[in-house]
Amino acid sequence: MTDNRHRVETFIETLDDRDWEEWVTLLDPDVVYEIPQTRERIRGRDRYLEFNQEFSRGLAPACRGAIADDTNGVAWFVWEVEGAEPADAMAFFTFADGLITSVTDFWPEPYDPPTGREHLVERC
Amino acid sequence: MTDNRHRVETFIETLDDRDWEEWVTLLDPDVVYEIPQTRERIRGRDRYLEFNQEFSRGLAPACRGAIADDTNGVAWFVWEVEGAEPADAMAFFTFADGLITSVTDFWPEPYDPPTGREHLVERC
Repeated sequence: MTDNRHRVETFIETLDDRDWEEWVTLLDPDVVYEIPQTRERIRGRDRYLEFNQEFSRGLAPACRGAIADDTNGVAWFVWEVEGAEPADAMAFFTFADGLITSVTDFWPEPYDPPTGREHLVERC
Repeated sequence: MTDNRHRVETFIETLDDRDWEEWVTLLDPDVVYEIPQTRERIRGRDRYLEFNQEFSRGLAPACRGAIADDTNGVAWFVWEVEGAEPADAMAFFTFADGLITSVTDFWPEPYDPPTGREHLVERC
């Protein structure tokens, strides 16, 4: 397992544990966090920590898979909040000098399948 | 670059080119394609080919990044259809014996940012 893959897994595990002391050790002080779907960006480890401490309560992320190379990584994870169906999400990472320099999150939502392709598709 | 990372990039490029002859050479005959957001599944290379030939017109995917290891890979790509804003999507892959054995697509959509976090966030 590459170090960066281990960092991706530890990122999700410590987020789930709300182990902020360990979580921040993974991050570059100038880390940039982005959510392209809302066009939101947070600059810096301190604000990103505050954001997660305040807004990730009950997220309960569990890693389904981590892939990484020397400079990039991804976590495909499942998250749930009480009373809702578990949902897939993914976080893309960049790394430099053993630290996470960016995190980009995606939160896909369920939608109805387009009609006309039922002859090729089964529902799962 | 790993062979699997090259396969991920070739998958997106040949999809963009609609080069089906090349595209199918990447796939295991029993490849499984899934879209968790719609709970759709397609079994087998032939149906998956037919699906893409019929339903991917105008998709124009462009790879933003590919990450892969010996068994798993991901493509983060941008796609656009005429008249709409380009959007991010991602495809996760599994590999065996040099062929793609599964593809799982996610198509996140824009949404309004929750209120209450403006003090930490900039818009981008």
